[in-house]
Amino acid sequence: MEPLKGNLIFGQSGGPTSVINSSAAGVFLEALEHPDIIPRVFGMRHGIEGVLKDELYDIGQEDKKELELLLGTPSSALGTCRYKLADPDEDDRDYQRILEILKKYDIRYFFYNGGNDSMDTCLKVSRFLKKENYDCRVIGIPKTVDNDLEGTDHCPGFGSAARYIATSIAEVWQDTHSYNQPMAVVFECMGRHAGWMAGASALAGLIGCGPDLIYLPEIPFDREQMIRDAKKVLEKKNVVLISVSEGIMTADGRLVAEELSARETDAFGHKQLGGTAVLLADLLGESLGLKVRGIEFSLLQRAGAHLASGTDIEEAFAAGREGVRTAMAGTSGVMMGFARPEEGPYRTEIIQVPLAKVANLEKQVPRDWINAEGNGVTKEFIDYCLPLIQGQACQKQEEGLPRFARLKKVLVRD
Amino acid sequence: MEPLKGNLIFGQSGGPTSVINSSAAGVFLEALEHPDIIPRVFGMRHGIEGVLKDELYDIGQEDKKELELLLGTPSSALGTCRYKLADPDEDDRDYQRILEILKKYDIRYFFYNGGNDSMDTCLKVSRFLKKENYDCRVIGIPKTVDNDLEGTDHCPGFGSAARYIATSIAEVWQDTHSYNQPMAVVFECMGRHAGWMAGASALAGLIGCGPDLIYLPEIPFDREQMIRDAKKVLEKKNVVLISVSEGIMTADGRLVAEELSARETDAFGHKQLGGTAVLLADLLGESLGLKVRGIEFSLLQRAGAHLASGTDIEEAFAAGREGVRTAMAGTSGVMMGFARPEEGPYRTEIIQVPLAKVANLEKQVPRDWINAEGNGVTKEFIDYCLPLIQGQACQKQEEGLPRFARLKKVLVRD
Repeated sequence: MEPLKGNLIFGQSGGPTSVINSSAAGVFLEALEHPDIIPRVFGMRHGIEGVLKDELYDIGQEDKKELELLLGTPSSALGTCRYKLADPDEDDRDYQRILEILKKYDIRYFFYNGGNDSMDTCLKVSRFLKKENYDCRVIGIPKTVDNDLEGTDHCPGFGSAARYIATSIAEVWQDTHSYNQPMAVVFECMGRHAGWMAGASALAGLIGCGPDLIYLPEIPFDREQMIRDAKKVLEKKNVVLISVSEGIMTADGRLVAEELSARETDAFGHKQLGGTAVLLADLLGESLGLKVRGIEFSLLQRAGAHLASGTDIEEAFAAGREGVRTAMAGTSGVMMGFARPEEGPYRTEIIQVPLAKVANLEKQVPRDWINAEGNGVTKEFIDYCLPLIQGQACQKQEEGLPRFARLKKVLVRD
Repeated sequence: MEPLKGNLIFGQSGGPTSVINSSAAGVFLEALEHPDIIPRVFGMRHGIEGVLKDELYDIGQEDKKELELLLGTPSSALGTCRYKLADPDEDDRDYQRILEILKKYDIRYFFYNGGNDSMDTCLKVSRFLKKENYDCRVIGIPKTVDNDLEGTDHCPGFGSAARYIATSIAEVWQDTHSYNQPMAVVFECMGRHAGWMAGASALAGLIGCGPDLIYLPEIPFDREQMIRDAKKVLEKKNVVLISVSEGIMTADGRLVAEELSARETDAFGHKQLGGTAVLLADLLGESLGLKVRGIEFSLLQRAGAHLASGTDIEEAFAAGREGVRTAMAGTSGVMMGFARPEEGPYRTEIIQVPLAKVANLEKQVPRDWINAEGNGVTKEFIDYCLPLIQGQACQKQEEGLPRFARLKKVLVRD
């Protein structure tokens, strides 16, 4: 079969990661290699919003060297968005507009890089274009620090965030254990419904510097239990380190952050500030009478490209590159995913996952990868994560600081 | 002059840094080279408390390879303390005890690594030993992320913290600028009375990713001014990044964190949690009606050895090594400091600073290194900081995580 000839568009969506730009580099550098099939390569300005607004970047005008520097540049270089397309059966105006733009620029390759919402966008666009008989390959590229996409062994972005969290906790372990005084530290990791990132804290335990307790959103959170758990740790050692997901919830389905804030809300409606880490640290301080710290990794954990995992960067790049090859080979309506063999050393195979198997679903940490007490993860969890954080990012430097890609971002004019 | 023959003791004190262990490595590896002069090398367990309790580590029993790994290990490997010695004229019991231990182990080289409090400890010990006619070389080795020691161009520990802060802010800049929506982020850096660390945020501006506003404790903080400043920035751009020192104070000398917390304290005495960053971010959110984030670098900034500055590591090591050489050459009662030439490329000369010139003093950021508006730093400030963050730490890795030194820490038995 002759490959479909036409232009390619790529967009980034949802929360940034340390390696979402590596996937962009994979798509761009591969697509630019095939001008006979793909004459022009475009980038969406702020994801799908850029399509709706007819704001496309002309990637052909970028220096190849700068595109390569995307491998060390965190966040979404093209800009991101959180725009959710309507159900096309109810309101198809956005889709008509997308089709109009695709036709205008003769785009036959539509690439979208994001999480489960973005795969939903991909799926809806793919179905609409098929319905309208517009021949176009639609490919999803996965990314999310949350690691919660179905159909793939893991997601680009997670390994780097995991490495950031484990390294940072190990360093803080060294700091807090240098004092001869009791202390509790609570770390807050991203993850609203899935505890992959907080679980990855346990990797620091491999070098003897891990958290003592880990609480994930998969298990209902009981603050009295946490206090008892912490007390038990403190019977044996001076310092207790606790890692939690931002999304931990009580048994009745309330976010712990809300529950604890409410506890302190007064008659005037003043509300306590501070995330879960600070609130829990304060609770421990009150209950156990010791020095506490709450440390929220905030945006640092998903932007910390200087600590990105080399494996993650390579895989994110490969997902983009293989996506282009897959599309040129005639496949559409899939997300590029990863499979790993059940036995033997870690390696990944890039697989094609039907978008419908990914869109809007969330993969949580399996119950049997969490310990019986619900305050830690098992060896299976660690064995799963460990290969994902291997390899160092070879980030270029200038002035002792990261040399990020500097894209020209030339908007396509009519 | 024959070098004084006797044993050496080294201790770490005050808040840890990413490179305080590099100074330890400098002292230990140099001292262990001279068994004819210094037959035994000891480490204090938790600083001066280890001397008072007769808890000394036998450094001669450590593997040299592990001592070298101290160059990539953050925090205080021997343990630290915040013990303040009494005025010896009022109560000399601690000093008598120190003298007893020095005699017991025939210690003739007393090294203490810390900030201005620790230099005060050094000074008091030095004077007492002289008064008691106990021949002993007393040497202070500087360290502090705060960079507030007098008598030296800069302090080991600062460059690494500066690099951590500037890199992290640049990464978060990338993240926040990927959205097409207004946002304010407030970063909180350490520094109670001196704004060196918050000022170092400005380095990120060299790669176009710096904070728009910086507030240091040297200038009285006016929250209305900050809101006006932020508004002005937001007239031109979507995102405003603000960096502050934890110690910023209002004109009447109250900590901003206290003032803002008080504002929200209710009739029942409930107090808002959260540090200055979160409080200020909330204030901006309320005043300007936009999305906000408060990010506190907390212990991460002083423990982030994976991002340590190569220059800082080398200098911290050299301060320790030269300290030993200086002491063997007969000098006592000094802190090892750094001088740099006023002209020409950056290089440092290690100098001897009398302890009395350092003890208990704090060096603030000069007024003319802060801009006229009091919301940023000048080119002089940046030129001063930039050489200090150069060079990458070559941290050994294992399992994708840092390979920290594993000391045996064998306690000396009677």
